[in-house]
Amino acid sequence: MNTLYEHGTLAMLMAKNLAGTITLEELLKHGSCGLGTFEGLDGEVMILDNEVYQADSTGAVHHVTDMSTTLPFASVHFPKDLHSVTVGNVDFDLLNKQFVHDHQLQNVFAALRLHGTLADVLIRIAPKQERPYPSLLKVAQGQPTFSRQNIIGTVFGYYAPAAFGSITAAGWHLHFLSDDRQFEGHLLSFNAKTLSGDYEIFDQLDQHFPVNNREFRQSDVDLQSLREGIAKSEGHQD
Amino acid sequence: MNTLYEHGTLAMLMAKNLAGTITLEELLKHGSCGLGTFEGLDGEVMILDNEVYQADSTGAVHHVTDMSTTLPFASVHFPKDLHSVTVGNVDFDLLNKQFVHDHQLQNVFAALRLHGTLADVLIRIAPKQERPYPSLLKVAQGQPTFSRQNIIGTVFGYYAPAAFGSITAAGWHLHFLSDDRQFEGHLLSFNAKTLSGDYEIFDQLDQHFPVNNREFRQSDVDLQSLREGIAKSEGHQD
Repeated sequence: MNTLYEHGTLAMLMAKNLAGTITLEELLKHGSCGLGTFEGLDGEVMILDNEVYQADSTGAVHHVTDMSTTLPFASVHFPKDLHSVTVGNVDFDLLNKQFVHDHQLQNVFAALRLHGTLADVLIRIAPKQERPYPSLLKVAQGQPTFSRQNIIGTVFGYYAPAAFGSITAAGWHLHFLSDDRQFEGHLLSFNAKTLSGDYEIFDQLDQHFPVNNREFRQSDVDLQSLREGIAKSEGHQD
Repeated sequence: MNTLYEHGTLAMLMAKNLAGTITLEELLKHGSCGLGTFEGLDGEVMILDNEVYQADSTGAVHHVTDMSTTLPFASVHFPKDLHSVTVGNVDFDLLNKQFVHDHQLQNVFAALRLHGTLADVLIRIAPKQERPYPSLLKVAQGQPTFSRQNIIGTVFGYYAPAAFGSITAAGWHLHFLSDDRQFEGHLLSFNAKTLSGDYEIFDQLDQHFPVNNREFRQSDVDLQSLREGIAKSEGHQD
């Protein structure tokens, strides 16, 4: 059995619950690879082989070793049942259509990790928010973006079925981290001649909630605004 | 940590995946109490203290001991961190508003088990479908209902946050089982002067998928129809 562990939900972020509710120490018990953000939506986090990298909104990338750092939202897993893949002329359009179709991912959670040279890459990085916290939607409207050409690195992240779109980013949610660890963020668009790596399909989603967090328990989720907000804030450009 | 285990999703049932994809033997490893339905949406299942009861669409209740029986959709848990409650003049309206508010359930998964005399109870029971399977929506449109007055029994089931409404029944999903084990089904409406029992809040939802089931992997989920269908088929009367 292979499991994807998720702490928090997009619904929580939309309801302005941006406080960190799990420590890196606890999170890494549930996976050695993953994605997330720090308290206050502070940047874009990628965890690769137990190493934690955070890009802040200036574009700087930090190797994070303070395991007391907290996150409001993160997904992690231990790689287990890997299928090797090599993909040519790869971009979001290819991943969204051909890749999902070929590997029948549409109704399951999956992880993807690809490495190689990206001809073009565009990322965004969430800027840290202070209390009183805004919703994810508000933050998503003014996020800095960064681009590079001909950069070697790792595209890593998850696929989630459409039915889970109020819980986590539906479809692909990918980050990019350069091999020199100087460039990282939430992937908006990219293309590459060839990327190689692996994917994995999960039997189970372990969705964890910060049930002892008072703000989370008391907050109101407006489902219609939630869906519109997620569509606007978690998209990528095809 | 207390966990709610769910096999399958409402999205799957809406996409006509009614084949049984977990055995009772496997399901009971994940919980001693729960709700579900058998292959082909065959009836309403309640599991109480490791005993499995299924009502078929004639209204008959069966004590099920064949552990190879399969289910397409079920939720189970091991009772653990129970909070005692006694509620007066209780019906769906009270549970939906006052109870959810008083115990701050709106953003979490919870279990509820109440016992006592119900002045009125109305249930429905899904009729077994044959291949080619229709969607849950179609089945929901012609389900037999049954009512009783002054009947002693157990109201049992789960609360799910609105954001999970494409995955499982949002809000309360409750079944009723009479003490004489002769009357059971999906609760549509009820009222009682006083019911006593307990509720429990879950830290985690373990959502399990039948990833090796070909029909599940290949099926298409239409998210808009899904939401409309769930609203029509999983509701209760206030």
